[in-house]
Amino acid sequence: MTSHSDPITSTIRTRLRRKPDRGRFDRASVERILDEGFVCHVGTVDSGGPRVIPTCYGRVADVLYLHGSTGSTLLRALAAGTPLCVTVTLVDGLVLGRTQRTHSVNYRSAVIYGQARLVSEPGEKARGLAAIVERVVPGRTADVRPPNRRELAETHVVAIGIEEASAKVRSGPPLDGPDDLEIPVWAGEVPLRTVAGEPVPDPATPAAHRVRPPDPPGYVRDYRRLGE
Amino acid sequence: MTSHSDPITSTIRTRLRRKPDRGRFDRASVERILDEGFVCHVGTVDSGGPRVIPTCYGRVADVLYLHGSTGSTLLRALAAGTPLCVTVTLVDGLVLGRTQRTHSVNYRSAVIYGQARLVSEPGEKARGLAAIVERVVPGRTADVRPPNRRELAETHVVAIGIEEASAKVRSGPPLDGPDDLEIPVWAGEVPLRTVAGEPVPDPATPAAHRVRPPDPPGYVRDYRRLGE
Repeated sequence: MTSHSDPITSTIRTRLRRKPDRGRFDRASVERILDEGFVCHVGTVDSGGPRVIPTCYGRVADVLYLHGSTGSTLLRALAAGTPLCVTVTLVDGLVLGRTQRTHSVNYRSAVIYGQARLVSEPGEKARGLAAIVERVVPGRTADVRPPNRRELAETHVVAIGIEEASAKVRSGPPLDGPDDLEIPVWAGEVPLRTVAGEPVPDPATPAAHRVRPPDPPGYVRDYRRLGE
Repeated sequence: MTSHSDPITSTIRTRLRRKPDRGRFDRASVERILDEGFVCHVGTVDSGGPRVIPTCYGRVADVLYLHGSTGSTLLRALAAGTPLCVTVTLVDGLVLGRTQRTHSVNYRSAVIYGQARLVSEPGEKARGLAAIVERVVPGRTADVRPPNRRELAETHVVAIGIEEASAKVRSGPPLDGPDDLEIPVWAGEVPLRTVAGEPVPDPATPAAHRVRPPDPPGYVRDYRRLGE
């Protein structure tokens, strides 16, 4: 078992060569970022060149799950154990300095290196898929039909150990030098957050249900994301 | 000169092998996505393995600019012409089907493949850097000090032609099959958007300026992002 205070493996890849003060190398820092986002960018090497694809993910303990069609080039490559890099980035705000140079973005990012393992055991496959839906809409899987045999057969789920990983965080105000502080322009931070708008019911909802449209459940009505 | 209706080069990498109906291959579709986001994920190959790093970007016509310290491993690799993949992803909303399988995310993403060119001509370097600040906070560069000679010497700017590129878009409701439509659970879309919170003035603002704190300029007060 791994504990939240365990260090994550530090390697030449996860050690920060620039601005090492922004680095976080404990499991809890990485997991907090993974548990706030729901879209990652997966990097692979395809015919010698890099490829970066956005996709959803789920986390169960120290394992990250990705999924996709068995026909997907990405999922086939991941299932075959190609080296990968998964990055999750949360943008917290804009940093406006008094010079172009001191503009920045406040963010938290987690990077995981490794290789995936194709999940074939049915129980783990179901848990991995449910974790992905739950990461996007916590509470949702209890209300919907789980995947059937055909859907499971058409879907690849891969597992990535959260082992060689690190987090990077920038927060706080701009860092203008003493002379630049005298430039008489507003400077500071503009916090950003993601909010949910009014839910839009599926127009394909059958007429019988439409007469008394079921209210959106609490996890939809009160959906909140970053920074709220 | 390139025009907005020009097709962008379609290659084996940008052609979508899965769900080709989601693909967009015209310059305008790619540029619209680039002009709404401000964070990209840059993929490179480092010691044979993939690496995915978030960073800001700017666009001037059919060129994308990235920047970073001359000491940055990423910028050095980009400056040396390593193959790259730049991905910009905008998340528009959540798609809640009546089954786990029909859950999805509405999004728009742009992917650019290529190699960067180190920008050495001072005019283009300045324009590239300004474009990055303007992408994050439109209107800001007019108010702040441009980079000085030392800052320019410490910064690498690289240019990437927006040539081998494509966009991918998912929008609309969940796509449940006829049988699943009868499952009596709320289904539909939850739009997401990024909003700015109350600007936080830099606590380092000198006392003389603090007595009458300069109001945040309009581009800060009314900062709006995706979907607004």
